[in-house]
Amino acid sequence: MLFPAPVLLEVNSHQLEVAETLIQVGRFVVIFVVARAIAELMVRLQLPTILGELVAGVLIGASGLHLIVPPEVQAQLSAGVTGLVGSLAGLSPESVQEVYDETFPSLQAVSQLGLFALLFLTGLESELDELVAVGVQATTVAVAGVVLPFALGTAGLVYLFHVPLIPAVFAGAAMTATSIGITASVFGELKWLKKREGQIVIGAAVLDDILGIVILAVVVAVVGGGAFSFGPLIKLCLAALAFVAVALVLSRTAAPAFDWVVDRLQAPGDVAVASFVVLTLCCFAAQAIGLEAALGAFAGGLILSASKHTHDIENAVKPLVALFATVFFVLIGTGMDLSVLNPFDPANRAGLLVAAFLLTVAIAGKVAAGWSYLSKEPTNRLVVGLGMMPRGEVGLIFLGLGSQAGILTPALEAAILLMVIGTTFLAPVLLRLVIGGGSEDPAAAPAG
Amino acid sequence: MLFPAPVLLEVNSHQLEVAETLIQVGRFVVIFVVARAIAELMVRLQLPTILGELVAGVLIGASGLHLIVPPEVQAQLSAGVTGLVGSLAGLSPESVQEVYDETFPSLQAVSQLGLFALLFLTGLESELDELVAVGVQATTVAVAGVVLPFALGTAGLVYLFHVPLIPAVFAGAAMTATSIGITASVFGELKWLKKREGQIVIGAAVLDDILGIVILAVVVAVVGGGAFSFGPLIKLCLAALAFVAVALVLSRTAAPAFDWVVDRLQAPGDVAVASFVVLTLCCFAAQAIGLEAALGAFAGGLILSASKHTHDIENAVKPLVALFATVFFVLIGTGMDLSVLNPFDPANRAGLLVAAFLLTVAIAGKVAAGWSYLSKEPTNRLVVGLGMMPRGEVGLIFLGLGSQAGILTPALEAAILLMVIGTTFLAPVLLRLVIGGGSEDPAAAPAG
Repeated sequence: MLFPAPVLLEVNSHQLEVAETLIQVGRFVVIFVVARAIAELMVRLQLPTILGELVAGVLIGASGLHLIVPPEVQAQLSAGVTGLVGSLAGLSPESVQEVYDETFPSLQAVSQLGLFALLFLTGLESELDELVAVGVQATTVAVAGVVLPFALGTAGLVYLFHVPLIPAVFAGAAMTATSIGITASVFGELKWLKKREGQIVIGAAVLDDILGIVILAVVVAVVGGGAFSFGPLIKLCLAALAFVAVALVLSRTAAPAFDWVVDRLQAPGDVAVASFVVLTLCCFAAQAIGLEAALGAFAGGLILSASKHTHDIENAVKPLVALFATVFFVLIGTGMDLSVLNPFDPANRAGLLVAAFLLTVAIAGKVAAGWSYLSKEPTNRLVVGLGMMPRGEVGLIFLGLGSQAGILTPALEAAILLMVIGTTFLAPVLLRLVIGGGSEDPAAAPAG
Repeated sequence: MLFPAPVLLEVNSHQLEVAETLIQVGRFVVIFVVARAIAELMVRLQLPTILGELVAGVLIGASGLHLIVPPEVQAQLSAGVTGLVGSLAGLSPESVQEVYDETFPSLQAVSQLGLFALLFLTGLESELDELVAVGVQATTVAVAGVVLPFALGTAGLVYLFHVPLIPAVFAGAAMTATSIGITASVFGELKWLKKREGQIVIGAAVLDDILGIVILAVVVAVVGGGAFSFGPLIKLCLAALAFVAVALVLSRTAAPAFDWVVDRLQAPGDVAVASFVVLTLCCFAAQAIGLEAALGAFAGGLILSASKHTHDIENAVKPLVALFATVFFVLIGTGMDLSVLNPFDPANRAGLLVAAFLLTVAIAGKVAAGWSYLSKEPTNRLVVGLGMMPRGEVGLIFLGLGSQAGILTPALEAAILLMVIGTTFLAPVLLRLVIGGGSEDPAAAPAG
């Protein structure tokens, strides 16, 4: 890949190619071994595996061992790595660093693929019918859970901490998400999925995914222009809502067409390739009308959620998610500069306050959403609120894209990371306490 | 990904990112839609799908529509593409071309992943036990089928056509492969897989895979040094054989250890990630001792072929192969300059002669190998020879890596491509003629 001249062979080019392969392949080894080791630990602690992947990223990244360092953060690769690769390929440590930086976009492209695959899978697994059953209550909870943290967070950052509007809006938006996967697994484990609370939370989380990704698409597009103005904002909001509406309509009408095509395909791997084409087409369409490609990936999943091949599609997409979404989450951790949160450095006091503020608003905003809906039957509103709390992968997607777009300062990035880690960590722990430690009877809970 | 300065936001950077996403995503759409459309046609013509992917590559590549052009071949992107992306992202066509060239390594990295996944799957599906049953005869056929085309091809290129030694050796090596997949599918369809001929051919093809990849690893490593010398050649041959021997031993001993680990993993996607770690570790090990990473991928598959989880591993790897190996084959086609074979240009006469020579030697060498073994029972030696003929994906891997390493001239690349296409196309056609059109009784065939 590094050979512009196709005929003449320089001695050096072979060494560069060896270093390139060693780095590309070795990076995967480091990412997967460390991320999976910590993820296994998390599973045994009954915590979400995504926490393990984040922690792994921080551990091997720019705040830790410097084994994986994104070129953007301008950190030096660990001397152990440059030394090992250098001696194997016969290159100087400086050349190794250079090859490393040059090949990093490939790793980022793979992580982007993982992000798209994850959002596609989220869309695919959205059970829109379940949403209808608890429609009104779920909608109330979802909207309250989006508006409260967003408004409180953005306003607080701007007025209390004097953060500029664009990063403040972005941080606020990052607090709107709810991780459906984490909530669903805790509720499932405690056998509360089929209870009214479980259904409201899952319904609201599905809606939150849609709202969150629409907000993300709009915020990134508006912020990409460099300044806020209401004209494009409204246009983009309408475009995003129209995009999701079209996807919802297509999920009823286009899925049969997809099935018809897949049934006629005979070459091996047909389902994998056909759904990948839908995924990429939707990404292209979203980006082409000025929205985030991530919204397209999610919409692609929504469209195919009504296909009769969903099971095969999931089986084809899951390995991509297991491999490449892990890379995405680890990379987010690697780019974080946690030294800005070191409490022993007085210069960091403001940053720490911001982090504490974000975490508080993130918890309070979602828990309060549990009291937003009307219900004739008594339901445990604390459980609903806590169930909406984990930001998980969706919050991280915000963080990753904001960090990529260079919108956030290191201190704000670290604060958002802490907010995501904190809510993702606390939600399962608190839910187990409230549900398991309290009683199985919702009426006995604090507020009915 | 294109942002070195993480804080300051330029208006332009958003446009660049939009163009980047449109290009990256759009490339996948073009590759998959065209490749799959032609592959489906091939399935209906009872021809190998890989031919469709190659033809698709040529069609959309530098010799065709210029929709996908590797930067190495210095071809301009089609004006339609630069115009469309440029107008969507608000950039000039020149900037689009630049973004296109800059992001191409990511596509190549993905295609490399596909290659590794394919070789891993090939190793995983190698039935070493079947090989033992027809051991001696298969070994004779495999060795004859490697030595004859390699020796005849290299010698002919050097002495008849005055091709320099290094490209001649590389072209000779590209003729040694046998595509087990294509042969197995044709034999399976004609119900000859369980006959003696089928077993010999499959056994020999497995051995050929091993020999071919060892040869590839050695040739690329030696050629990478820039010149031939016997010291490194012998060292690398020994290293490659030792590597494969270790993999074969590990397939008996390390697979249980792998199973033990996988049985203890609980995080989702454990099989996919664990086998990916084995794959990447083997690639790293091969590259670290100076061999091709591709050999490592194959060895990784061999090691895990004795695991009790092979079925799950295959299911996890197959989507990667369906998606990314397609990219690998299409990219080979896109880089080819078929104008050097235009028969109406007198300057191309020498190149056409080389292509005709390679194709003849590639067919004759493998068919002759059908007469190399001793057998008490009468077997149809023509069927064995024809079964060894298709070069398929293995021949293409040679071509792809040689082209990447800048070893081959455009004329030689095109000649090898024609050789691969010719043998891959002719083998199933001739086998159906000989088996189907002749008789089901092997004794009635030309030579007993």
